[in-house]
Order: sequence, then structure tokens, then C-alpha cells
Amino acid sequence: LERNLEGMAHTIMSNSFGKNIKVTIFGQSHSPAIGVTIDGLHAGLSVDLAELNSFLQRRKPGQGEYSTTRNEPDIPEFISGLVDGVTCGSSLTAIIHNKDTRSSDYDQIQDIPRPSHADYTARIKFGENHDVRGGGAFSGRLTAPLCIAGGICLQELKQKEIFIAAHIIQIGKENDRNFDPVDVNKKDFEALNSAEFPVLDKDAGNKMLKAISEAKEAGDSLGGVIECAVIGLPAGIGDPMFEGIENKLAGILFGIPAVKGVEFGNGFASAGLKGSENNDAFIIKGDTIKTRTNNHGGILGGITSGMPVIFRVAFKPTPSIALEQDSVSLSKHKEVKLVISGRHDPCIVPRAVPCVEAAAAIAIYDVMLG
Amino acid sequence: LERNLEGMAHTIMSNSFGKNIKVTIFGQSHSPAIGVTIDGLHAGLSVDLAELNSFLQRRKPGQGEYSTTRNEPDIPEFISGLVDGVTCGSSLTAIIHNKDTRSSDYDQIQDIPRPSHADYTARIKFGENHDVRGGGAFSGRLTAPLCIAGGICLQELKQKEIFIAAHIIQIGKENDRNFDPVDVNKKDFEALNSAEFPVLDKDAGNKMLKAISEAKEAGDSLGGVIECAVIGLPAGIGDPMFEGIENKLAGILFGIPAVKGVEFGNGFASAGLKGSENNDAFIIKGDTIKTRTNNHGGILGGITSGMPVIFRVAFKPTPSIALEQDSVSLSKHKEVKLVISGRHDPCIVPRAVPCVEAAAAIAIYDVMLG
Amino acid sequence: LERNLEGMAHTIMSNSFGKNIKVTIFGQSHSPAIGVTIDGLHAGLSVDLAELNSFLQRRKPGQGEYSTTRNEPDIPEFISGLVDGVTCGSSLTAIIHNKDTRSSDYDQIQDIPRPSHADYTARIKFGENHDVRGGGAFSGRLTAPLCIAGGICLQELKQKEIFIAAHIIQIGKENDRNFDPVDVNKKDFEALNSAEFPVLDKDAGNKMLKAISEAKEAGDSLGGVIECAVIGLPAGIGDPMFEGIENKLAGILFGIPAVKGVEFGNGFASAGLKGSENNDAFIIKGDTIKTRTNNHGGILGGITSGMPVIFRVAFKPTPSIALEQDSVSLSKHKEVKLVISGRHDPCIVPRAVPCVEAAAAIAIYDVMLG
Amino acid sequence: LERNLEGMAHTIMSNSFGKNIKVTIFGQSHSPAIGVTIDGLHAGLSVDLAELNSFLQRRKPGQGEYSTTRNEPDIPEFISGLVDGVTCGSSLTAIIHNKDTRSSDYDQIQDIPRPSHADYTARIKFGENHDVRGGGAFSGRLTAPLCIAGGICLQELKQKEIFIAAHIIQIGKENDRNFDPVDVNKKDFEALNSAEFPVLDKDAGNKMLKAISEAKEAGDSLGGVIECAVIGLPAGIGDPMFEGIENKLAGILFGIPAVKGVEFGNGFASAGLKGSENNDAFIIKGDTIKTRTNNHGGILGGITSGMPVIFRVAFKPTPSIALEQDSVSLSKHKEVKLVISGRHDPCIVPRAVPCVEAAAAIAIYDVMLG
Repeated sequence: LERNLEGMAHTIMSNSFGKNIKVTIFGQSHSPAIGVTIDGLHAGLSVDLAELNSFLQRRKPGQGEYSTTRNEPDIPEFISGLVDGVTCGSSLTAIIHNKDTRSSDYDQIQDIPRPSHADYTARIKFGENHDVRGGGAFSGRLTAPLCIAGGICLQELKQKEIFIAAHIIQIGKENDRNFDPVDVNKKDFEALNSAEFPVLDKDAGNKMLKAISEAKEAGDSLGGVIECAVIGLPAGIGDPMFEGIENKLAGILFGIPAVKGVEFGNGFASAGLKGSENNDAFIIKGDTIKTRTNNHGGILGGITSGMPVIFRVAFKPTPSIALEQDSVSLSKHKEVKLVISGRHDPCIVPRAVPCVEAAAAIAIYDVMLG
Repeated sequence: LERNLEGMAHTIMSNSFGKNIKVTIFGQSHSPAIGVTIDGLHAGLSVDLAELNSFLQRRKPGQGEYSTTRNEPDIPEFISGLVDGVTCGSSLTAIIHNKDTRSSDYDQIQDIPRPSHADYTARIKFGENHDVRGGGAFSGRLTAPLCIAGGICLQELKQKEIFIAAHIIQIGKENDRNFDPVDVNKKDFEALNSAEFPVLDKDAGNKMLKAISEAKEAGDSLGGVIECAVIGLPAGIGDPMFEGIENKLAGILFGIPAVKGVEFGNGFASAGLKGSENNDAFIIKGDTIKTRTNNHGGILGGITSGMPVIFRVAFKPTPSIALEQDSVSLSKHKEVKLVISGRHDPCIVPRAVPCVEAAAAIAIYDVMLG
Repeated sequence: LERNLEGMAHTIMSNSFGKNIKVTIFGQSHSPAIGVTIDGLHAGLSVDLAELNSFLQRRKPGQGEYSTTRNEPDIPEFISGLVDGVTCGSSLTAIIHNKDTRSSDYDQIQDIPRPSHADYTARIKFGENHDVRGGGAFSGRLTAPLCIAGGICLQELKQKEIFIAAHIIQIGKENDRNFDPVDVNKKDFEALNSAEFPVLDKDAGNKMLKAISEAKEAGDSLGGVIECAVIGLPAGIGDPMFEGIENKLAGILFGIPAVKGVEFGNGFASAGLKGSENNDAFIIKGDTIKTRTNNHGGILGGITSGMPVIFRVAFKPTPSIALEQDSVSLSKHKEVKLVISGRHDPCIVPRAVPCVEAAAAIAIYDVMLG
Repeated sequence: LERNLEGMAHTIMSNSFGKNIKVTIFGQSHSPAIGVTIDGLHAGLSVDLAELNSFLQRRKPGQGEYSTTRNEPDIPEFISGLVDGVTCGSSLTAIIHNKDTRSSDYDQIQDIPRPSHADYTARIKFGENHDVRGGGAFSGRLTAPLCIAGGICLQELKQKEIFIAAHIIQIGKENDRNFDPVDVNKKDFEALNSAEFPVLDKDAGNKMLKAISEAKEAGDSLGGVIECAVIGLPAGIGDPMFEGIENKLAGILFGIPAVKGVEFGNGFASAGLKGSENNDAFIIKGDTIKTRTNNHGGILGGITSGMPVIFRVAFKPTPSIALEQDSVSLSKHKEVKLVISGRHDPCIVPRAVPCVEAAAAIAIYDVMLG
């Protein structure tokens, strides 16, 4: 292993996102606390803490049979930037204390990396000082501070009549129906935001839940796809090339653990279409200009068109499974069998729904401030 | 239209990418010149100008029947940062003079936006001062300076035994075979880099060419998918969360016009697999540790695993087609028919192959310098 | 007042510094806690917490008669990034809980801004939501997290045999002697770092202390100048133009409250010299090249020359004085008399010495990592 | 020399400034061209090219006896971002072709570094690939593209009724009078902007010119101080800590070659004053709030107060003098005598006046856009 480490120029890690606001996430799964600093929030913004906490509940572990049993209250403590629920212009920092940590669960990971987890790559990068407990900074737990920042951005966007919601469009082999790319609306959003298991078609949702149960029973796991829509965005937001809405959204969405693909509008399907099939005709709708279809997913040339922004995010199946797997012992440099104990989600997709909304809100809000 | 413009906070455009090197692209399709400034290149790097020019030829227009007939020599002029072909440490700037511009072709676009083009969104964002000629800064022509920067990065990566190549894996309904995710190698790369039409399976390539010809004849266009691989990257490069390799690559790839999706490793397909199917077992291979399969596409937790980095990029069909389309007149605020004249690629995917390689090279080189 | 606020495009505040490391400071004088997040520290760095705490003691309030009597233990709590005193590669966050806050002292400031304080400008910028208590984010208290970050950087620089120390070169009309710009050395530094009142000439120091006492008794305050030196820096560090060592140091030093001037080497005095007087001849010194004199302060063209880096930082007198002053009532829009109560330093220069060292360490360490 | 180079981690150079606009300068004294890219200018800004060229004339070499005789027309060519004199939203790039280059003048510098020049430090940093001709990227010539960017920003600020002007306040031992810190006004500015030798007191100016002539005759050089004022800035612009107006201005001003000190308001003089002397009382002036005096230079807590922003910039004497000097031969590692031939300013301060205005305009405009 040391041979691999040699010549590594550095072992730096940056956890900041944004240009007009800067969101910096800190903490490890088992450090005293995790948290987030948001630089660049205007003074005078009201944060509805009850609404924020209820948003955070949606990604909370320990909620159902398809989820890990780790139990954390996850109530953020605001240590700066907020006075009586209103931003004061100073950097806002919120932390969540880590409580229900069972570090002993993770002892063998130090030597035997879990397949398709970041154990091995983190060890190569950070060396033996990597905080391996609970996945360290690679833990899904770090999406809690992401959701704090995103939850605040969601509230600010709502003030500007911009709304974001996501649903589970696929789990394993089961599929929900798509958002209507032209007519997706606030009513759909409200239903999804308050649903225990956010899908458009309840039957599809039940099949997904059954598939998760079966995977759990089999000691296995499932992946899935989340579809997200943003409505209310005016036309003309974004930039061509490197600062387009697609670049920005992808730049933050791939930061959610387990994400392996991102597509906008027709996405990969558009590759199989003709221009005459994929092009969206412009039409007059009252005072404004819209498109008849929305294959472009609300973004043309990196800039919003005024149509709903629609994208899908692919999640790989949870790598931590109960089944025995092949791995290696780093210390002995030989192949070994690995059985992972500990608490793990058979499918993280349901809990990832608010994370996708949060990430989208941060990216969109950042662009709106530009 | 003015009603839409109201309240737009700003009309700014940023064309910079990178943290350790900074690549700034400038120019419009019909401005006196287009170009690129690369900030942060080490002094003493040799640039093989012949190799660079031959790389640039691969994206040059006017090369075959499936391409636009605009003819530009596209030889970059280095106006700073390079002395006798060696970097001197100062910012490197290269420009390409625009010559074969026929601005009159684009007169009607000012009033009637082309469906699924950026004409409308650019107009809303920049107002009537947007340089609409030839698509302005939204033109595929801006990928020429991207390829200058990428071509230089490719050469520097080659010095470190890191190689990048891409092939066309899909055009319309036709598919090439995938890279072998475990054994993709330099020999494959050399064949692709020197091919006129870069595919792994020649027969598939011929079918694609036929499909393009048919689309052209029908006044229509096709999209496609490009698959790209990076070999030779050591394990341990990248960061979790916002600065992962996936975020970086997606952040630049979505800057190539017409890209609508990016996926890594198994990508969207992994959403339909079980953990036991998608996980990649660690194995011992001589002195090093590898994975038996490479469903993760060489990246775990945002960090390279030492396996080939593999990703796919979806391109929508060229929006400019000869067939009559529905659009609107901005000045008259009414629906009209649009017939686009001028020179256009029936499928930009072949010319996008070096652009994908260039973009990947810039992102990877930037991370390597970190 | 409202008239002034109109048209203010934004009320954003950014508290981040650095390119290779990113130091983000958060908190207000009277928020639950203040703290700092350092993004980009390599994994495996040991932090000597005892040494860090003793460094922090040097800027602590409540230590002598020339200082405010606010009493804060100021022991940082590390909530992420540090495991058993060693960095793990994740963002490091340390917080200090605010305890001895007497918010009622500051009630009248909301309406009557203190002359030469930031009360008025903060109010205009942030509006009535500005956290005025204790100066909010403008408080000298925010230099505590600056010193945490700087103290860690000082330790890392020491590992590379780079040392930084500062002394008080002027308080009011009293002057200490200058560092020997050619021969300043580690012995001087050790004496200064452990001194209660860091000066090179003890007699000068006693006169300064006397001047501070007199100012305090008179209900008045004093300013001063701090001179800082960095030794051990190799030649060749830095950049011309915007990323020079001088730009970087000035960019952070002006962030310390009350700083109104920064000069390097001969600084403002060089304006009165001839080239033949100010130029530093190159000489051979064993294997290396040095300069005979060091009027350039160790920096030429923004890049280190291998000579000691020497600069001076001017502090205005503490604006909070006990004497009655002229101000205005914002609510009544009329001129009023103001008498400031509360606890204030008659001269903040002594406590600013570690702040200057800390700021210099952050800037230098950031450049060294580039 | 090689011994020094060993262990230097990298030889990177960044020439970008700004957050909301990004100004990237490129080129070397003797490269084919020098230039600037400005990212982030709004579409629709008119650039008065005649006014810009006349601004650029103020820093042009070859204008008088106190200046170098190198003759460059220095008319910028806009190759992108500007259509018919109006910005189109794309990155704006302007270049100036280098013509009157006599590279042979500089041959010996490769081996014998000029005292107090950047020859030595650049050589250490960039190695032998440094473009030593004419000072390469360290040449004062690079202030021409700075003035292009600054000249455009000055025009935009003027649209917002914000004006910037500077005068020579010191050359050698001769001094001009200070700006009236409270009443400095547009009439003063107009006189300075059109003056051949910008001073407030003509007699002082004549003495300065005489001193420059004498220095030139003696084969020597002089330094000086420039004082600059910004009027029309509303209160409430800027940030505390790292993003204050002082940090921003210093961060760019130290990028002008030969600058060794920057101070705001009373600056270093405030260190010798009591709080009761230095504090600026708030007063009512009609509808607004002002300060009776302006010792704070228009900035409190990093934020504008609505009073004129006033700062001074110290320039060291031109290091290139005709007198024989002591230096070393790098190749022979021994001390040698150096006589510099070639064309050099005996005092660069007069030509630096527009550079200071340009730098200030860029920094202020960048903050205003935030």
C-alpha cells in the first residue's frame, strides 16, 4: 500500500460549493459534530426553523424498515449568523452533534475495504489518518448539513415563487411515471413534499417498497433514480459553457454519495431521437413565450427557458450489503472474504430525495444571486 | 419580451474553468477572433505544436459530408506564455482569427429564435446586445479554444503516462460496443485517436455514417453518445463531495454545447442492479490492488481507484435542421413558421469526440495539479 | 437612513480567505459561539494543542491593565477534522463558545453610532438586522478564530523551518527599534514570542506601557505599528501581479480590525530615496545568493528573494473612548452627544501582535501549498 | 542556483483579479502581444473607445524627458466581447501588439540579475524558461492591459456618478499638498485627469520635475507616493474582514510593479494619534449623515461610510539605474559589477498615476457588482 501512497502530491480535501453563496460542509460520521457554514446570505432573511426541521426529518435515518436503525435527532444548533430566526449578514453556521455512534462496528474496515465504498480510495488519499469510523467524511451522514443549507435556500426560493420537488422514479426494476414536463405544478409538489414515500403513482410506490423489503431480506441492496423539477424560474438565468445551470446542478449533485449519473430533459434518450423529434417548438402563451414540449428540460445553452427545469439523478445500490463479499486485507496484501456488520440502508434512494432537492436549491439560489 | 427582461438582476457571463489551472475562453462565432487564456501552467513545459494542430484538426469543420461546410484553418496563434514552444510561466494565450463568417445567414434569428437553440434564452439574458451572429458565444465554434487548452493538457498528462480517448458509442439507433472497463488500453486509444470516425466496431461505424447521411438527406439531424476512458491515473486523486472527479468532469462536460447527460461506470444502468451485482470485488494483482469488475467507472467517493475512469456523455440531435419548424416572432409576438438556412452539421457527435477528450484532460490535469 | 438603504443591491458578507487552504470565520461577538473552518489541510498533520492554546492566550482579553476586562477562557473545541490531535483530511472546524457577554452594554449603539467604529456602516449595509451586540461580526473578538487558524499554520510552517514573529514598533509617540532586516533571527523570535509585551528594546516598551496607562486614565486611546518578520522562506515563492506575497499579506492584514496601512521593506520611506540608495546589491554567501541590504523586505516582483520578509502594519487608535463625543441619533436624525460605557482596550496593539503573526502565517502557508 | 530550485514544488503564476468581474492579464514585455480578458461584464455597456485611448495615453511610454524612450502606439484591438462599441455579454478580450522590442538590450540579465528587480526571483521561480526579455511578465508594460480593464471600469463607474482621480503627492523629497479629505470634488478631478503632470500645487510639480531631471542626469532614479480619491460611492459597500474595501484595493494595488506600501485615510500617521484626535464625529448634513473629518479615509470596518475614499500608494525608486552596481553572475556564482544599458524611466511615478486609478476602478467596480 505504501508504494501506492508514494508520489501522491497532496492529500487535500475541499468541501465548499458556490460562487455567490459559499456552502462549506464539515464533520465526519463520528466526529463530535457535523455542520455547515453558509457565507453570503443577505441580512434580514427569515428562517422558519419548524419548516426546516420538518424538511430535515425527511432524510433522517431510523424511520422505517427500509432504512438504517441509527437514531439521531438531527436538530441543528445555530451558532452564528442567525438572531431570533433572522439572518444578520454574518456567516451562518449550524451544527448537529453526533450522538448515536458505535465506532466499534467499523474496526475491520481499517484493514479490509468494503467493495464499492470509498474506504480504499480514502485510505490511499489520506493515508492511515483517514477517519474511517462510520465512513468519515464520506458518510451519507454529511448530507444532513447539506440539507440544512438546502432547506434554507428552498425557503428563500419559495419567497421568489420558485419551487423544487423530487420523486422516486425508479427503484431496482420498478418505475414511477415521469413528471409532466410541461405542466408539472405546485399541487404535485405539495403532495410529494408531504408524502412518506414520494412517488407520483402509489401503486408503483408499493412495488418499490416491496422490492426494498425483499432486497433487505436477501441481505442485498437496491439503487434507483430520482427525478426533480424546478418551477417558477424566470427565463434568462444561467450562463453558457462552464457556468450553465446544468454544470452547476451536476457539480453539486455528484457530491451526494452514490450518484453515478445526471441527465436533463430527455437526457440520454435524446441521443436516439432525430432533431425533428427532439426540438421544442416555441409557442405564444398569453403574454409570454413557452415551448410546446419540454425535451430540453428547461435549459438551452446553459440558460433557463422559462419552462420547468427537469433532471434525473441515478443512484447505485447501497454498497454495504450483508452478503459475503470478496475483498483484500491491506495489511496482509492478500485476498479475503468480508462480511459487513453494522446498520445500513438496503436502499438509500428514499432518504436521498430531500438531498436532491437541497442540492438543487443551493445551486439554483447561488445562480439567482449572481 | 421586455416584460420578461424586467427584474433580471444581471446579464453576466463567466467562461472560466479550473482551480489549479484556470482556463478562460473568449470570443464569439463572428468576432474578430476566438481564443483561450490558460493561467497556471508551469514554466518549462514543451508544447508539441504539430501534435496540437493535428488534434485540433479532429474537431475542424468542413471535413466530410456529415459536417458543416464552413471552412476555417483554425491554426492557433500563441500571443503570450510560449517562447520557442516552451511555456515561460506567464499566462498562455492563444487566439484563432475568424475568417469564413457569413453573418447575413443569421439575420432572421434576431427575431425568430431557432427551436432548441440558445437564441431565445440568450436574447432574454443579454437583451438585444447579444451577438447573435453565428450563435455568438453559444456557437460550437467556441470548442476550438477548448480543444487548444485540452490538447495542451493531453500532452502534459501523456508525460505522466496518463492517456485519454473517446469513441462514438451511439448515433441515433446505432450502437458501438463498450470499452472493456477493466482492460481498455493504449492500443485501443491509438487506433481511436488516428481514426477518421472513432468507433471500436467498424461495422457499427458504417451504420452510423449511413444514418447520418440519411438524416442529412431528410433535412433532419441525429444525436448520440460518446464514451470516454482515462487510463494511467493513480488511485487517490480527487475529493469527496463537491470536488470529486465526477463533479469536476461533469462540471466541464456540460459546457460542451448539446450535452444533456453524463454518467460514470454503470451510470443509469446501476440503478436497476442489486448491490451484489454492482459491487466490484477488490483483488490482488501483483503488487497492487485492483477491482475484478469496474462498474464504479474508476471512481469511489469522488476519488480515483486506480481502475480506468470511464464515462459516457449524451448529445442531443443538432437543433438546426432544414425542415420547417414552429417558432415565434419576438417583435410581433406571434407564432410563425421558420426555415433555417445556412451551414449546419447533421450530427455534431463525431466532431465532439476530441472536445470530450479535451474537456476531460483539462479537468483531470487541474485535479492532478491540486 | 432609509433613503441611503434604497438601491443597495445586496447585503452579502464573505469571511473566507485563501486559495489552497480556505479559512472561513464565523460568529458574532455575542452569538452562541464563534469559530473557524479550515478547508484544505493535509491529512496527518499533528496539531500541538497546548502550544496552540498558549498562542491563543497572547491575544486573550482581560490580561492586564491596558486591556478590556472581558474575560473569556477562549479554549477552542474541535468539532471536526481532528482525530487524537491529528488532521484526518476532512475540513477542520473549531469553535469557541461565547460566555461573558453583557449585551445590555451596547443598547444605545443601535441608535447612536460610535465615531470611527463600524456601527454606522454596518447598519447601512445590513439594515436593522445587523447584530449590533458587541460589534457583531466587526468585533475584535473575531480575531480569536483567526488566531486558531493562524496558530495551526504557524506550527506547520515551523515544521518547514519557517518562522514568524512580530513586535510592537510604535505606540503613540514611542518607538521600538527596527528588526535588523538582514540578520533578524530565531533567537529574537523566541524572546518576542514569550514576552508579555513584545518589543526589542525593553526601555521603549516601558515608555509605551506608560503611554497606554496615561491614555487610559485620560479616557482616551492610542494606536501603533507592528513590525513582523518571516524567516526561513526559500526564494521563489509567490507570483507577479495579483498573487504576489505583498498582495496576499495585505489582503489578509487589512482584515484585522483597525489596520489602516501596510508596508514592506522600506515601504513609504523608499519613496524618498534614490535608486542608488534603495537598491539591494546581490552578493555571494557561500553556496547561496543573498542581498547586502534588505530594503526590498524580502520580496521582489511579488516573489520571495530568500531574504527575511519584513513588513509593518499601522493600527489606528481604538475608536471606543470614554470621553464624550459627537455623533447622531439615527432614529431622530439629529446630532447628539455620546458617552460610551462598557469595557474597551485603551490600545489594542499589544493584543494584535499574535493576530498579525496569525494572519501572516495563514497567507504564507496558503502560498506555500500552491 | 540549481540547489535553490530543488524542492520547489511548482512554478505556477496566476494573473487574475476579481470576484464579480474577473480580469486576467496575459503577455510578456516582448511576446507577440499583451492583453486582458474581462469575464463578467454585463451586456449592453457602451465603451467610449476615444476616451479609453486617451486614458491609455496617460501611461504610455515615450512622452517626455522623464520617461523611457520606448515608443509603442498602444492602441488596443478588441477581439471579442464588443460589437460596435457595446459589450455583448461574452468575455471581452483586448490585445496590444508589441512592436518596438529590442531584445538584445537584455541579454546579460539572463546571467546577471539587476539589483531590486525581479530578474533573480523570477529566475528562481520559473527556471531558465523564464522569458527574461524586457522583464517578461514582470515588466511595467503589463500595466497597459491593466489600464484597458481599469479604463472600462472607470467609464462604468462614471455612469453611476462615481469618480476616481489620483495625483502625485511626493517625488523624492518634494511634496504636493493632500486632497481635502472632506471636500475633494469633481473639479479637482477634471483638472488632474487632463494635466500632463498631475499635482494639486503646480509649484510642487515643477520642483518634482526638476528633481526627476537631476536624477536622470546623475544616472539615478526616484520613487514617490500617489494619492488617490474615490468620490460618489454610497455608504454600505464592502465587507468586514477579508473582503473589505481596503483588502480589495490593497490586493490589486500591490500588483502594480514597484508598490511597497498602501495606507488609507490617516494611515501610518493615525498610529501616532489619540482616539480623541483620530475619531471622526458623525454629523447631520441635510438628509444624510456625514463625518466632520475624514481620518478614516471613507472606510469603517471594511465598508464605505459615504465620505470620499482616500488612500496613498508608495513606489520605490526605479531599480534600473545607469550607475554601476554590485551584482552576481549566476553561471559563475561570483560577484561582478553591472552596468545596465537600455531605456528606463528615471521615475515611473507619473506614468503610474493612471495605473493607480485603473486598479482602484477595477476593485471598486468588482465590489459594486457584488
